[in-house]
Amino acid sequence: MASTRSSQPRFALVASEYNREYTDALLQSAQATLAGHPMTVVRVPGAYEIPLQVQRLARTKKYAGVIALGVIWQGRTEHAREILRAVTDALMRISLETDVPVLHHVLAVKTEAEARARCFGAKLNRGREAAEAALALTRISGAKGKV
Amino acid sequence: MASTRSSQPRFALVASEYNREYTDALLQSAQATLAGHPMTVVRVPGAYEIPLQVQRLARTKKYAGVIALGVIWQGRTEHAREILRAVTDALMRISLETDVPVLHHVLAVKTEAEARARCFGAKLNRGREAAEAALALTRISGAKGKV
Amino acid sequence: MASTRSSQPRFALVASEYNREYTDALLQSAQATLAGHPMTVVRVPGAYEIPLQVQRLARTKKYAGVIALGVIWQGRTEHAREILRAVTDALMRISLETDVPVLHHVLAVKTEAEARARCFGAKLNRGREAAEAALALTRISGAKGKV
Amino acid sequence: MASTRSSQPRFALVASEYNREYTDALLQSAQATLAGHPMTVVRVPGAYEIPLQVQRLARTKKYAGVIALGVIWQGRTEHAREILRAVTDALMRISLETDVPVLHHVLAVKTEAEARARCFGAKLNRGREAAEAALALTRISGAKGKV
Amino acid sequence: MASTRSSQPRFALVASEYNREYTDALLQSAQATLAGHPMTVVRVPGAYEIPLQVQRLARTKKYAGVIALGVIWQGRTEHAREILRAVTDALMRISLETDVPVLHHVLAVKTEAEARARCFGAKLNRGREAAEAALALTRISGAKGKV
Repeated sequence: MASTRSSQPRFALVASEYNREYTDALLQSAQATLAGHPMTVVRVPGAYEIPLQVQRLARTKKYAGVIALGVIWQGRTEHAREILRAVTDALMRISLETDVPVLHHVLAVKTEAEARARCFGAKLNRGREAAEAALALTRISGAKGKV
Repeated sequence: MASTRSSQPRFALVASEYNREYTDALLQSAQATLAGHPMTVVRVPGAYEIPLQVQRLARTKKYAGVIALGVIWQGRTEHAREILRAVTDALMRISLETDVPVLHHVLAVKTEAEARARCFGAKLNRGREAAEAALALTRISGAKGKV
Repeated sequence: MASTRSSQPRFALVASEYNREYTDALLQSAQATLAGHPMTVVRVPGAYEIPLQVQRLARTKKYAGVIALGVIWQGRTEHAREILRAVTDALMRISLETDVPVLHHVLAVKTEAEARARCFGAKLNRGREAAEAALALTRISGAKGKV
Repeated sequence: MASTRSSQPRFALVASEYNREYTDALLQSAQATLAGHPMTVVRVPGAYEIPLQVQRLARTKKYAGVIALGVIWQGRTEHAREILRAVTDALMRISLETDVPVLHHVLAVKTEAEARARCFGAKLNRGREAAEAALALTRISGAKGKV
Repeated sequence: MASTRSSQPRFALVASEYNREYTDALLQSAQATLAGHPMTVVRVPGAYEIPLQVQRLARTKKYAGVIALGVIWQGRTEHAREILRAVTDALMRISLETDVPVLHHVLAVKTEAEARARCFGAKLNRGREAAEAALALTRISGAKGKV
């Protein structure tokens, strides 16, 4: 079993600590979905700090996917909107530059209810969704040779 | 006929699976319009994952055009707006870096009616439009030598 | 006169075909203003396809300026706004990377009246304006040696 | 003690002078939080001038983190919004290009009350927060080898 | 005195001609503030054409700073907003790529009153402010060696 596992896809997860109640939940759902796969987890203070760690992990070329998880409160200041924008752009650029799939689930939420629904939801759970997408993409990568 | 066909332009299509009712329809319309041409199709979970696959296909230099198809629901969270923005930018950069035309029909829709009109419409069908534009651009590319 | 002409600045024009009534008018006004100068004209299906052709033309280094002409209807979907944004960015980057002036007159219009005023207007004619700006910039380029 | 100190992480702080009452407060809170660590401080006239100095400092590779501090009044003109956007993007790019954490606390504020709360607050103090995040990231960097 | 002057910092100014009443005023205020320093002035038709000239001047490495001056009317079409955005981004990138300070005073104004206040004002004069910031930055550059 162990030898099989060593050939399994590895994943990395980077999650911010800000709004920890929610980001812990996102992280736990993602990890539960990836159970049985080797994983590396890195925590950073805020969402703006996520991309640098994602880039470091993606550049190692050890991971089949890197998952970015965080929660940004929207609607109070323009700062929050710009952080979301810059993070979205950076994660995309990192994915294109390293050729490693980056799953972007740094969420923009306006209310506690919205945050709860996305982080703790049974039906709409962004942590689980991120992990499922990462797993699905390993099957596409496997098909890359056919292109 | 087969030998003629081998010199025909090849196309690649990348479509997200999210909102599958609509994205399947976009993909089918595009494929029907390109009927008779060699095609490669790749499906990804969500819109944010489209550009990486488009880049992989464009970099092979085998395709006369790469068509990106998807549906993003707008107006609920800022996340969706940023995804659309980042995807639009990424597809443009990939086109300019690879010198391969990339057709961007990852749609932003607000209602089911809007989605239906764009994905199933007889007059306004974005899948067909994408394919027609890809075909039209092969004629410009053919004229490139004249520049 | 012919020998003089061969040392005249050459221009390239890239115009989208979508909303042809207006884009034809923009193109004709621009061409009329540049009359007597060698010109290359390329048509593409939609505005998003303009930058790739502009880049191909600018990279030849044969042109004193490349003029981008198009009409995008604004206010219906966010897709249109993102197209305008990505085109505006791409044309700027192409200009800075090739050191060739790129004139950006891909217009964002909300109503037919607005489109008519900008494309057919005697006073406010964006096609003529684009060509006049391209001509004016050749005089600055000529002064580049003085820097 | 001195020899221990020489192996301590060094930090750089770049703060704008515009709205000096607030930016001085941000800077002082950040410096107080980093007390005991070697620091370099650079002041620039306005927020738009911050990234160039951040880049110069980050490229020296001497710092465990570079903190950007400033205050931009929002809501009056679009110029201010674009400055905030461009600064947010530039700081992110510099961080990714130099592999040095950049802490972005160039604030967007609408009222004096908002500015006071963020710059002088006991609970919500962006200067202190920036410094605490920079310190926290040194612990992640230390763990980088494990990736 | 002349020999002293030859070691003085040189400045370049790029101003658009559109809305000439205001852009001339911006330019004159900036030049008056820089009086006694060697200066190069380039005029371009519109704001979108400013960055290419700024890049050409910054790349010469002859200038302690390059000042961009212009006026864009906001609120009429989205085109104007995108122009402002693209210019703001381009000037920032040029500054970071050339390591030359670029002062961005391409203004976004909504009314004639707003334009007058910023271009002719005694207290709020963006031309003078741009020049003062450029002068202030030469003192930081002088301190660069200390970093």
